[in-house]
Amino acid sequence: MTRIAAFLGLGAMGGPMAAHVVRQMQRQGGRALVWNRTREKAERHAAEFGGEVVDLPGLAEADVIFTCLPTSAEVDEVLDGVADGLKEGATWVDCTSGHPEAARRQAARLVERGVAFLDAPVSGGTSGAQAGTLTVMVGGDAAALGRVRDSFAFAGKVVHVGDVGSGFAVKAVNNALLAVTLWATGEGLAALARSGVNLGAALEVINASSGRSNASQNLIPARVLTREFPATFGLGLLAKDAGIAADVVREARASAPVLMQVEALMRAAATVIGADEDHTAALRLIERMNATEIK
Amino acid sequence: MTRIAAFLGLGAMGGPMAAHVVRQMQRQGGRALVWNRTREKAERHAAEFGGEVVDLPGLAEADVIFTCLPTSAEVDEVLDGVADGLKEGATWVDCTSGHPEAARRQAARLVERGVAFLDAPVSGGTSGAQAGTLTVMVGGDAAALGRVRDSFAFAGKVVHVGDVGSGFAVKAVNNALLAVTLWATGEGLAALARSGVNLGAALEVINASSGRSNASQNLIPARVLTREFPATFGLGLLAKDAGIAADVVREARASAPVLMQVEALMRAAATVIGADEDHTAALRLIERMNATEIK
Amino acid sequence: MTRIAAFLGLGAMGGPMAAHVVRQMQRQGGRALVWNRTREKAERHAAEFGGEVVDLPGLAEADVIFTCLPTSAEVDEVLDGVADGLKEGATWVDCTSGHPEAARRQAARLVERGVAFLDAPVSGGTSGAQAGTLTVMVGGDAAALGRVRDSFAFAGKVVHVGDVGSGFAVKAVNNALLAVTLWATGEGLAALARSGVNLGAALEVINASSGRSNASQNLIPARVLTREFPATFGLGLLAKDAGIAADVVREARASAPVLMQVEALMRAAATVIGADEDHTAALRLIERMNATEIK
Amino acid sequence: MTRIAAFLGLGAMGGPMAAHVVRQMQRQGGRALVWNRTREKAERHAAEFGGEVVDLPGLAEADVIFTCLPTSAEVDEVLDGVADGLKEGATWVDCTSGHPEAARRQAARLVERGVAFLDAPVSGGTSGAQAGTLTVMVGGDAAALGRVRDSFAFAGKVVHVGDVGSGFAVKAVNNALLAVTLWATGEGLAALARSGVNLGAALEVINASSGRSNASQNLIPARVLTREFPATFGLGLLAKDAGIAADVVREARASAPVLMQVEALMRAAATVIGADEDHTAALRLIERMNATEIK
Repeated sequence: MTRIAAFLGLGAMGGPMAAHVVRQMQRQGGRALVWNRTREKAERHAAEFGGEVVDLPGLAEADVIFTCLPTSAEVDEVLDGVADGLKEGATWVDCTSGHPEAARRQAARLVERGVAFLDAPVSGGTSGAQAGTLTVMVGGDAAALGRVRDSFAFAGKVVHVGDVGSGFAVKAVNNALLAVTLWATGEGLAALARSGVNLGAALEVINASSGRSNASQNLIPARVLTREFPATFGLGLLAKDAGIAADVVREARASAPVLMQVEALMRAAATVIGADEDHTAALRLIERMNATEIK
Repeated sequence: MTRIAAFLGLGAMGGPMAAHVVRQMQRQGGRALVWNRTREKAERHAAEFGGEVVDLPGLAEADVIFTCLPTSAEVDEVLDGVADGLKEGATWVDCTSGHPEAARRQAARLVERGVAFLDAPVSGGTSGAQAGTLTVMVGGDAAALGRVRDSFAFAGKVVHVGDVGSGFAVKAVNNALLAVTLWATGEGLAALARSGVNLGAALEVINASSGRSNASQNLIPARVLTREFPATFGLGLLAKDAGIAADVVREARASAPVLMQVEALMRAAATVIGADEDHTAALRLIERMNATEIK
Repeated sequence: MTRIAAFLGLGAMGGPMAAHVVRQMQRQGGRALVWNRTREKAERHAAEFGGEVVDLPGLAEADVIFTCLPTSAEVDEVLDGVADGLKEGATWVDCTSGHPEAARRQAARLVERGVAFLDAPVSGGTSGAQAGTLTVMVGGDAAALGRVRDSFAFAGKVVHVGDVGSGFAVKAVNNALLAVTLWATGEGLAALARSGVNLGAALEVINASSGRSNASQNLIPARVLTREFPATFGLGLLAKDAGIAADVVREARASAPVLMQVEALMRAAATVIGADEDHTAALRLIERMNATEIK
Repeated sequence: MTRIAAFLGLGAMGGPMAAHVVRQMQRQGGRALVWNRTREKAERHAAEFGGEVVDLPGLAEADVIFTCLPTSAEVDEVLDGVADGLKEGATWVDCTSGHPEAARRQAARLVERGVAFLDAPVSGGTSGAQAGTLTVMVGGDAAALGRVRDSFAFAGKVVHVGDVGSGFAVKAVNNALLAVTLWATGEGLAALARSGVNLGAALEVINASSGRSNASQNLIPARVLTREFPATFGLGLLAKDAGIAADVVREARASAPVLMQVEALMRAAATVIGADEDHTAALRLIERMNATEIK
């Protein structure tokens, strides 16, 4: 059983995820360590939820280390600082939306120290993180997952999808499909707008029909038609994830013309509209390309 | 109130739709006329449900004429035979997945005879047709729709989406989005398969995440992963509809790179795999392009 | 032999083409009629080159009528005014970059009056028009072409490519390929620019290698790297022609994913950058998508 | 001045390139070393042209080492065997169509041993290799290039395009543009074939017009219309190079929707038609997608 769990990266997703881990450790009589690049953030988290703030060397005691950072590059940086000091038999669970190739490299590095690595990105957004109902897609050794599965206190569903890197690959493909559905629905609506069709009525029909998707049912009505584009998940991050999917395709020597095209368009949207805008603001590039508004 | 309703085209969709119209007329003390290019089909329908088989000249009496034919070309053929003999004040409701440009032409032709035209394609599949719960997307004059709305006995939901042709445009865009989601999800799964990921687990995750669509939730698990590809909605018809969407884009001078690309790929799939195969068999072309199986 | 030749449309291309026709008629002792929507333009042309300005009814005498107008729509307008008055046995030669479907319709209309129709778009630009060295791609009856071939005084090369509409189809495909080579070379250069590569050196290499095209050899060095983008052939017209190619693809039920994608991107470029800019200014959209300059 | 030059990789390109190097060394009184994975090939080359066959340790004497291998992976393998034994002050010139990222890694590895690295891929095909007129695009230190420039005995033109990796990047983009022009011209011809147009006449016109490219002028008339598809440059290698271009795009965070799509289509062609077929046989996939022949 996990006696000491650590959580690194207390951002919009990681913060509430870590809170669930802290509460579980408290219930079970274990210890929960929290860390953030900006130490004050960790101190605020500890003050609110009760974990212990640690410096990176303090991770030497942890049985399970969770990371939830912006990209695999930040995970590499943290690993550089702590890999040599980790406890043999510990498990590193990376919940970052990371890169499969990085996962394979990191796993190879940790296995030499007797530490298991699982890539375990999540879906469900900040609301799922708060509710503790995230879906976790896990790549890596099934036995290693079995040993730490109980510590996934933030999860509603945990699915083992394959070897190391598979979790990141599935997450990247999922987000690429989010990009495709968002963009293609935006294209269709822009063409209908230029044809004089009532877009609200059109979406109502599509959402009762075979062309519906999470993007058409949830994102576009709430964020685009309202013209609000609330910045929860950044356009730059979606472009990054679509890019990881393109890398997955390339590394597998697969042929995926639509995923590749949409990666390029999403990258263009992040450049033209702004990486910090909400991911649904990609449709603003479609609006410019069509001299119309999707509303 | 409609006293005499006619239904032309008694195929997989039209047959059960017509049955609802017949039953409604029977309840209301009106008359229901049925017609099919193959007359025996109409006679079997009448024997089972009780309508009256008519020849095209018999449509002269009808207040409302429904058509549900393969393409707008067949509607043109029927119109050539009957347009001059229709009753002034009648309404023609075309439930075909037709072409917006044909709708505008047909409406202009009928309005000269004092007959209103509504393009009113449906979604919901054969099960929705049997249950009488189809969604109908209607283009044309709102007042004309108001006069015949009660006769849509096969509908669960009727949405007015714009002027003549708008119904067909929305239907085409919906089906183009079906094509996009099917194809892109297939690409993603093929790349994951080549990466050694468990596809059933990957789909389970995607369907709990932001990349989900009707294609990922319903079609691919039931038809592709099972390797059954049951032929309910033909690949050639989906390619045709994606092509109508491409025409909508062109006529609106819109820019829709993803819809255009997918139209081309779907057309290729219909040519290489077979127009009569189920539309989900488009993924068999992806499998060939990737030397893998989606299962 | 042609005794009376008429030329309609005296723009950047048609003006110098008509001058060649006028000179030929003068040499051969025939008559040359010129017409332009703006009559003053025709009067200036006649004053300079010596043809006779006519109104549309004056075309009744012509043995050969050349048209060189912006699109098939303008040809339709002129035809509406004159079709009934044309001389039986005359030949209408449309040098517009027109639409194959319009050609078939116009040919059918004229054949009823005993007038042959050839679609005969040209390539070679304004310099070829002035030099009288244009390449003409002709669709229609080979015998009809044989009868009037000598009157193509503006041509360096005349190629019969197929039935009515084939000339327009080939022209549209040629211009779509121009759009593809321009755009793709622009993408490649933008990526190289972001990689720190010297673009002049890169183009020098490409132009000595297998990836070269008219766009890479002539247009981009002279118009893009210089940042001059001189407006000779408008971006809106190239987008129109790429659109005609998309229609050719659709009408032939062909699958052409790259041509379809580039049509959409060229349409977007015309909308975002401006239809009246030079066609090479399409690369300005690529520059925005990549936050870089191609220079 | 180079006293000892080595050439590794004596295939269809490397063989004749090495012969030029051998002859130059003979003229200048230096020594030329040749190596091939299959030693007999090196012995045949030496017997014909007069160089000295060496084992990898023999490279320790060389002032300049040329490599011309299938991919960067083979270069890595050779480097693993010899890097530690190279002469300080030597220069490694890699003429492989390699990967920019590999070039940067290899250069960093060699600089530690005091050895300079230049990526120097070539274009011009086997005929250019035999004639000694290849174009070489060089990435790396300009001074290092200056020191060995005279040893490029196989070159007609040597262009310095930027830092290490730039040569490979330009080569990859050039070949991606070859892929784009081949594929798009194939699409256009397939659509014209389905429209009943004479393809030989159409190509004649295109090659006198603005849509022309090396593919339309040279490859398609000689290899596709003739139905010969002679296997000189393999489809699998073109797909590999288009893939390197996709990686260049990704690494530069560039947006290149057409290059990305064509990479996917070329990959599919290599899978469906065969990696060992001539690169022009990619058009056979277009033929299948269109149920037509390009002839």
